[in-house]
Amino acid sequence: MKKVAVILFHDFETLDVFGPVEVFGALKTEFDIHFYSEKGGLVGNSHGVKIDTKPISEISDKPYIFLIPGGFGTREEVNNKSYIESIKQVSIKSEYVLTVCTGTALLAQIGLLDGRKATTNKRAFDWVMSQGLKVNWIKKARWVVDEKYYTASGVSAGMDMALGFLNDRYSEDYAEGLAAKIEYSWHKDKDNDPFGIE
Amino acid sequence: MKKVAVILFHDFETLDVFGPVEVFGALKTEFDIHFYSEKGGLVGNSHGVKIDTKPISEISDKPYIFLIPGGFGTREEVNNKSYIESIKQVSIKSEYVLTVCTGTALLAQIGLLDGRKATTNKRAFDWVMSQGLKVNWIKKARWVVDEKYYTASGVSAGMDMALGFLNDRYSEDYAEGLAAKIEYSWHKDKDNDPFGIE
Repeated sequence: MKKVAVILFHDFETLDVFGPVEVFGALKTEFDIHFYSEKGGLVGNSHGVKIDTKPISEISDKPYIFLIPGGFGTREEVNNKSYIESIKQVSIKSEYVLTVCTGTALLAQIGLLDGRKATTNKRAFDWVMSQGLKVNWIKKARWVVDEKYYTASGVSAGMDMALGFLNDRYSEDYAEGLAAKIEYSWHKDKDNDPFGIE
Repeated sequence: MKKVAVILFHDFETLDVFGPVEVFGALKTEFDIHFYSEKGGLVGNSHGVKIDTKPISEISDKPYIFLIPGGFGTREEVNNKSYIESIKQVSIKSEYVLTVCTGTALLAQIGLLDGRKATTNKRAFDWVMSQGLKVNWIKKARWVVDEKYYTASGVSAGMDMALGFLNDRYSEDYAEGLAAKIEYSWHKDKDNDPFGIE
């Protein structure tokens, strides 16, 4: 089983988390999903969701996928030095790091995207860009891949990226079969963002 | 604020819940979302998700929307007499009842769909049909509306139905604006299910 570690914080965006979790979770024999936060316990958001998490310090092994969602909470977390330092250490040791929406700001803030290509939610582009001045920001993309780093546009784009990740590791048929199973219309062209703002 | 009551049970399908929750949750000033289960406390599924819930007995008011997701857990819950009786009572008093995927089986089992049109996940159609022999099952539909009852096909169809619900209560522009905000390609024609099985 390949470990998927999902990091949460107060006011995460619901679908940034559970879109990719549905995609990876549908492959019950492949992926083992765990939820973490700064201190563990229940972590909530403005949609009334409260998720049980373990402390990030308990990620002692090397996750296959480290998933960083976005949401309004990222605006505070970029200034939470000790938490983003922990997120940095887990990102470094993880085989792949996937961010959705403004989750990219956390990865940019800790410098791991310096000199790399990345994207984010077009509605929050200026703010996220300000968190990583050395990042090669791609404005028109559903998601961007730069070696082990996958960064997606806003909210639902996380599902497209998760399916794109399966496409890259397995095959297009595999990703398409899964999309059909969860009845999701996959935007499979990562360079074409139907929601991009010119 | 309009109350959205979401019912959970062991092994609910992640996106059946959090797709519609993202849609209604994005309207922070309109909808107030609460999660319930048979006995309250943490309710989990095979995707590693554990959600904090209140007991269904605490729904003392009249929800505006009562959301019933699907998932493998429904196969057990259709036989959980006391729980589905509680679900029946809440369904009766709620202004609207929305089901996703095999969640429709719970509503069919308690007889509230008798003589009504409804749909469900096409991959589980035979089993769900067996739970409600007096239901007018519609095989080719993304979602079906019969007065206060909205029933959706599998998983992602729940988001299409939630946006369709906003279309019916507010306007098409309103639903489309929200879909764009969460970067979701809305299948707005409820009669055309791209994932239907002939």
